Amino acid sequence: MDHSDPDTNPAQNMQREIDAIVAELRHIRDTSLEHRQRRNRPPKLPSRKALIRIVEGLSAALFPNRLGPPGLNEAGIDYFVGHTLDVALRELCDQIVRELRFISEQDNGEKDASLEQRAWQLAKDFAGELPAIRELLDSDIRAAFEGDPAARSADEVLVCYPGITAITHHRIAHVLHRLGVPLTARIISEIAHSATGIDIHPGAAIAERFFIDHGTGVVIGETTIIGKNVRLYQAVTLGAKRFDVADDGQLVKGNARHPIVEDDVVIYAGATILGRITIGKGSTIGGNVWLTRSTAPGSTVTQGTH
Amino acid sequence: MDHSDPDTNPAQNMQREIDAIVAELRHIRDTSLEHRQRRNRPPKLPSRKALIRIVEGLSAALFPNRLGPPGLNEAGIDYFVGHTLDVALRELCDQIVRELRFISEQDNGEKDASLEQRAWQLAKDFAGELPAIRELLDSDIRAAFEGDPAARSADEVLVCYPGITAITHHRIAHVLHRLGVPLTARIISEIAHSATGIDIHPGAAIAERFFIDHGTGVVIGETTIIGKNVRLYQAVTLGAKRFDVADDGQLVKGNARHPIVEDDVVIYAGATILGRITIGKGSTIGGNVWLTRSTAPGSTVTQGTH
Amino acid sequence: MDHSDPDTNPAQNMQREIDAIVAELRHIRDTSLEHRQRRNRPPKLPSRKALIRIVEGLSAALFPNRLGPPGLNEAGIDYFVGHTLDVALRELCDQIVRELRFISEQDNGEKDASLEQRAWQLAKDFAGELPAIRELLDSDIRAAFEGDPAARSADEVLVCYPGITAITHHRIAHVLHRLGVPLTARIISEIAHSATGIDIHPGAAIAERFFIDHGTGVVIGETTIIGKNVRLYQAVTLGAKRFDVADDGQLVKGNARHPIVEDDVVIYAGATILGRITIGKGSTIGGNVWLTRSTAPGSTVTQGTH
Amino acid sequence: MDHSDPDTNPAQNMQREIDAIVAELRHIRDTSLEHRQRRNRPPKLPSRKALIRIVEGLSAALFPNRLGPPGLNEAGIDYFVGHTLDVALRELCDQIVRELRFISEQDNGEKDASLEQRAWQLAKDFAGELPAIRELLDSDIRAAFEGDPAARSADEVLVCYPGITAITHHRIAHVLHRLGVPLTARIISEIAHSATGIDIHPGAAIAERFFIDHGTGVVIGETTIIGKNVRLYQAVTLGAKRFDVADDGQLVKGNARHPIVEDDVVIYAGATILGRITIGKGSTIGGNVWLTRSTAPGSTVTQGTH
Amino acid sequence: MDHSDPDTNPAQNMQREIDAIVAELRHIRDTSLEHRQRRNRPPKLPSRKALIRIVEGLSAALFPNRLGPPGLNEAGIDYFVGHTLDVALRELCDQIVRELRFISEQDNGEKDASLEQRAWQLAKDFAGELPAIRELLDSDIRAAFEGDPAARSADEVLVCYPGITAITHHRIAHVLHRLGVPLTARIISEIAHSATGIDIHPGAAIAERFFIDHGTGVVIGETTIIGKNVRLYQAVTLGAKRFDVADDGQLVKGNARHPIVEDDVVIYAGATILGRITIGKGSTIGGNVWLTRSTAPGSTVTQGTH
Amino acid sequence: MDHSDPDTNPAQNMQREIDAIVAELRHIRDTSLEHRQRRNRPPKLPSRKALIRIVEGLSAALFPNRLGPPGLNEAGIDYFVGHTLDVALRELCDQIVRELRFISEQDNGEKDASLEQRAWQLAKDFAGELPAIRELLDSDIRAAFEGDPAARSADEVLVCYPGITAITHHRIAHVLHRLGVPLTARIISEIAHSATGIDIHPGAAIAERFFIDHGTGVVIGETTIIGKNVRLYQAVTLGAKRFDVADDGQLVKGNARHPIVEDDVVIYAGATILGRITIGKGSTIGGNVWLTRSTAPGSTVTQGTH
Repeated sequence: MDHSDPDTNPAQNMQREIDAIVAELRHIRDTSLEHRQRRNRPPKLPSRKALIRIVEGLSAALFPNRLGPPGLNEAGIDYFVGHTLDVALRELCDQIVRELRFISEQDNGEKDASLEQRAWQLAKDFAGELPAIRELLDSDIRAAFEGDPAARSADEVLVCYPGITAITHHRIAHVLHRLGVPLTARIISEIAHSATGIDIHPGAAIAERFFIDHGTGVVIGETTIIGKNVRLYQAVTLGAKRFDVADDGQLVKGNARHPIVEDDVVIYAGATILGRITIGKGSTIGGNVWLTRSTAPGSTVTQGTH
Repeated sequence: MDHSDPDTNPAQNMQREIDAIVAELRHIRDTSLEHRQRRNRPPKLPSRKALIRIVEGLSAALFPNRLGPPGLNEAGIDYFVGHTLDVALRELCDQIVRELRFISEQDNGEKDASLEQRAWQLAKDFAGELPAIRELLDSDIRAAFEGDPAARSADEVLVCYPGITAITHHRIAHVLHRLGVPLTARIISEIAHSATGIDIHPGAAIAERFFIDHGTGVVIGETTIIGKNVRLYQAVTLGAKRFDVADDGQLVKGNARHPIVEDDVVIYAGATILGRITIGKGSTIGGNVWLTRSTAPGSTVTQGTH
Repeated sequence: MDHSDPDTNPAQNMQREIDAIVAELRHIRDTSLEHRQRRNRPPKLPSRKALIRIVEGLSAALFPNRLGPPGLNEAGIDYFVGHTLDVALRELCDQIVRELRFISEQDNGEKDASLEQRAWQLAKDFAGELPAIRELLDSDIRAAFEGDPAARSADEVLVCYPGITAITHHRIAHVLHRLGVPLTARIISEIAHSATGIDIHPGAAIAERFFIDHGTGVVIGETTIIGKNVRLYQAVTLGAKRFDVADDGQLVKGNARHPIVEDDVVIYAGATILGRITIGKGSTIGGNVWLTRSTAPGSTVTQGTH
Repeated sequence: MDHSDPDTNPAQNMQREIDAIVAELRHIRDTSLEHRQRRNRPPKLPSRKALIRIVEGLSAALFPNRLGPPGLNEAGIDYFVGHTLDVALRELCDQIVRELRFISEQDNGEKDASLEQRAWQLAKDFAGELPAIRELLDSDIRAAFEGDPAARSADEVLVCYPGITAITHHRIAHVLHRLGVPLTARIISEIAHSATGIDIHPGAAIAERFFIDHGTGVVIGETTIIGKNVRLYQAVTLGAKRFDVADDGQLVKGNARHPIVEDDVVIYAGATILGRITIGKGSTIGGNVWLTRSTAPGSTVTQGTH
Repeated sequence: MDHSDPDTNPAQNMQREIDAIVAELRHIRDTSLEHRQRRNRPPKLPSRKALIRIVEGLSAALFPNRLGPPGLNEAGIDYFVGHTLDVALRELCDQIVRELRFISEQDNGEKDASLEQRAWQLAKDFAGELPAIRELLDSDIRAAFEGDPAARSADEVLVCYPGITAITHHRIAHVLHRLGVPLTARIISEIAHSATGIDIHPGAAIAERFFIDHGTGVVIGETTIIGKNVRLYQAVTLGAKRFDVADDGQLVKGNARHPIVEDDVVIYAGATILGRITIGKGSTIGGNVWLTRSTAPGSTVTQGTH
Repeated sequence: MDHSDPDTNPAQNMQREIDAIVAELRHIRDTSLEHRQRRNRPPKLPSRKALIRIVEGLSAALFPNRLGPPGLNEAGIDYFVGHTLDVALRELCDQIVRELRFISEQDNGEKDASLEQRAWQLAKDFAGELPAIRELLDSDIRAAFEGDPAARSADEVLVCYPGITAITHHRIAHVLHRLGVPLTARIISEIAHSATGIDIHPGAAIAERFFIDHGTGVVIGETTIIGKNVRLYQAVTLGAKRFDVADDGQLVKGNARHPIVEDDVVIYAGATILGRITIGKGSTIGGNVWLTRSTAPGSTVTQGTH
């Protein structure tokens, strides 16, 4: 074969193309934001794939009879729980080290040994919360079971309902957020978001017996506070009232800007509730309602009533 | 290394932590709802992972040229279809046994042999519906192809459109729901919900030539009845009118509570249609419409018109 | 075991059932639309699974430090980028051949050798756009980082935000759409749609610094044009105004029917913007707004203001 | 394409060919030995793949620090050992059920429930031998370490030496053979045979501190008895003296027909020792020696000396 | 970090090292024998991994009840056999194309379309031999079962005995060798050699009821002819008498140079039989015998007798 | 179910059994040789599975056209080689760190940072030898091709011949042995031993154009020296003469105790050559010969001649 006419040999052209692209991409990396912040071997961020495995492991340890392997019986259940926790916590510890190192490098360069020590402590503190997480999830499952006429058993709720998937990830992520590993927490939230269409920021504080039905399109913001026994339907937004921007075009950061939803509230599909307002205990918010003012306890708000 | 100061050895601490958590979790399991209902080796629920495989197998058997393996040709196509069905139906039978055993244990404790016999019969009855399912899906694909100016071929619709993914899962799940394995059916629906954001309850009765475009956020309730040639866009809800709660706070169960949508109706994005109302043949419901009353055949309903 | 009474032997019955179904399905295939269009070994469509791998490969080549394998260092980074591109582009080329052959068979039956030549050229042209894609994505990440008070670093945005997943797939798909492989492009868009709930048609033209927050339920139509520095929230629709149907019930195809969104526009959650209208530079569209008319630059549109 | 001339369309021919072969193979199965012994769904034999997994699990439980997963530490080691044993013993139990059912069907058709009960008991009895197996293997590793000048540590011996792989499989298989599941035992022996070229029948009784160096081609027969501290090299045969056939051409079965090797014997490469003879304590058998008579304790036998 | 002193930065050095090695290896490839024979994209040889899969598929199709998947029953067995054959034969056809193209390129450059046609014909011819292969293997299994007092059932022989693994591969490879794809045949033989230590050249002609016990180290040369009902033990060589080299140091090729073993012969472990000699019907060759002369029918040859 | 009679509930018994075994195994570990040498988290040994991957990677980098992935072409070959080397060398470096740490812990406890530095240097030194390894392997392949009348091409030799698999592993292992990581080297040798039955100690020095035919049972000892153009057949042993033991029963270690084989020697199947003797240039050693004395150049040794 004669290679003298490159125009008729696309494979040959491809070689030159790849060489050129590799060089261009290197140049872009060298001059981009990504590169400026670090040197040589950049710290890895926590891995989404690892966190998927970790949440699966923790879920199986929390509900071994339902989410553990088939065939598990009394002889092996505690060994399974202990071993699964051990593996998941070690993997979680590795991810926490990644986040601490990532933050540290941007700051003052803490030593690795110290980071690992700190990560172990965080993983241990997290582990200590697992029984409480299990009890909260039990209450969420009961709420779904009692609140949905279609549910035949608590087991069915656990394996079927996207709302339970979302709240399981949230309760894990929320503890990690509180302990000071917000990026790890956020990736866990986004895993649930991708699987369910339910987007709960890890910072949101949610009490027991929480139930989201259907769920696609639900958004719950960072500083939201939700009381006991609250029920939400699909496409509900608990958001910030974004129109209050500062003069320089920057949104003010970190302040309490999302709703407080008190105990026993029901919010129907498509309702949009914005700003640091309070939905009083026992209120019912109708579908598609747009709400930016607080409501008294026991209110019923529907389209046209506000 | 000296282990005498546990506070400086997080790995050592972790061991005590895990021992404690394993014990606490066991205690919670022993006292929780989960445990009370059963003894020793709890029956497994149908497995989501297995049902994903089963639906993939059934889909490949229904559309071997499009969804089967590459390289398949006339010599092997019927062997492929027969073998793939055989495997998928045996796996389905195992999942049905799990559901029957789960229900049975809660009730009167039917013998396993009898359950397996019943599961085989159900799998056989389901199998007998597959040709009808294929014909319905053909009509759905044609409706999408004819109704979407962007579609270039029926094949493209089959492999690309999330609405087709959702209706394929639904048509399979609906037959299973009707045959009496609602949990298996529900898990199949949730598989499609997670992949597409389209949430169709397996109980919904949907006639031929059904098409959902875009689809994210669509919710179709359990007792919905949909006629021929109906088209839906994203974020449409066909739901129950939830405000009619009983005095004791319990929702009434099992009654017909979702809309009837007659033939040739189009419902645009974001419309919310609630309660056992009837959308008359050939009606058009505009985007974001909130509708809780029946419409006459041929109606056009838009924001502000009702 | 006595096989004389088939009614009591479901496994035996199953055999006859499968034989019958295989025959019925063959009959349906033989008479269906699917079969009529082709002969013998039907051309395969581009494979969703292969395209998932390809986009992962391209993403890792574009952002090797963030999305490449752990442990990568300066010694190996260009080899990794070059090899990953080489593999991804060859796989992409195979998928393009499938699309070209599929179209060709419906038309005039172009020779395979010629199709492969054309596919190589298309893959090469696509490859040449990768540096530009990387620069656009850098601008998108910066926009997200600057526009979201919760974002702590550009890296976090890249690995966490579903809006970045969606725009990465879109920028790849858009180039392929423009080069003439719309089906391959569409499947890539649907991969992102399934993972994020964000549905961007590959035809949409989107300038730099584009950011979608939360994102579930966003739909952006084929002929949409979006300027620089535009921000969208969840459930925003940039769609066609569907009520303008022709007398024969067919929608007119291919014409410009989706909005033009000029630079520096913000559109809040749930807004629905329909038809070939123009949202003027610097406008703000409030949540849940329903908009079918153009707005002047600098407008603020909220519920009740239009 | 015109299909009228089948001779020029091999893919078409292939279809007829496969149909014919399927029918012929069915006919052969129907008339073969394989089929005559059973009805309908034939019992499965123990699975080689499952037994590979089981032996790996048991090995990791026996030597968790060396053969367990990386990262294991004190916090998790007992959970790992317990969980790994639990899984391996349940899988082993399933394989034992297969063997018992296979034998039972050939005999009198014992009930399945009874078989499972028996299998659990056998698995439990086997499990009780694991500590003794570990201690024997420790002695074998020490013998290899002390007997081979090239070995630098006991750990190295454990992970490197094919002789240790072979004896680990043998010590497990021998217990199973003794407990009455000879087929399961045999498959385990053949797994080691395939990996190492060392063929030890599970029936052979081998005392502590046994070491085989290099090992390829070693054959040790069913009724062989080997004392403490014996060392073998490659291609040694401890076999039956096959020339003593009965008049009817059948070999007599089950009688003691392989050598007894007393304590502290060394047998060099290629030696062939046949028949129920005794190699006296402390003897040395030279390379390639052919030996069919007993030797006194302390003998040295080389080529030409016997 | 300061990179000015490369000697203290091994990772940096590694980069230069890899660049240099890549260039050196390219230079060696360009000048080596490997490169000289071909141009641009070199033809792939048949793939060992693919052939492992193919032989597993063919084995499962030949013995579906024993080597097929668990759970297979009458309803699905012919679909399984047909589908498995279809897949295995198409994969085999691809491997045959590779071999034909590899040979063709070295010769006159036959067209690809013609090669594929030829490969289909060869695969079809091979497929036609499968029933005969199954019958031969049945006879081999019976011979092992009858000849080994330790064998309890034919099923056990099939799943356990390395001699059966070796002869199964050989009977498949021998047909392919005869049909003219010797490299594909050879790779199949080497797969068995690696798994069992038994090395049978695909050219050897072996009649029914052939049994090898233990087997490690057996070598059977290309032009060997073996009659019915022959039994071999480990480390038997049926080889060429290599001392008859030609004057130029080249061995003469292709001539009949290995033994003829007539019906009903038994050859014990370690016997070496060299050259085109004939072992007469019913002879017994003792262990470790070195034999280069023909023996009369009914002979018994032991060490010292020849 | 009543658990009061444990004897009738084997699953219940199993739990107590596992608890007891876990405790017993812990006790054995605590008192065994394995445990005494280390504290807390024991250093991992190099991993066999990782080394299998590493040798596959190195082999593909050495012979990319033959052993690399299908579809590789000129555009991508250097990127493939560079990337594959980069990955394999980093993995190799990790394994070397394990070996260095393992040795270090037994000795004086060198710092980890220093170990990693040393490992990088060793990996770099190893990498520098790869071109020489490729050239040696080219010579080995040529020798096999020229020496075996059955070989049709060098490519066939590379993919088919177990002797080439063995020498490829050896040439890699020998460099590592020489560089001071003998355990890593040994594991690589044992990988080849298991796959081919050929056992070459990594310490053996083997010059170019080395060929082993058939190979099962070949053993080549640590201090063996083999000249150019040497050919071996199956079951050849180049071993130590073991009878020269010291008074205390310990074998003397590290001294030259295996044969020197000069250029152009052929050794036929089953020959056993023991001790530090020299086989003179151009000698031929016949099958099954037992040889413990040196031979003059050009000798021919057969059974009975010595």
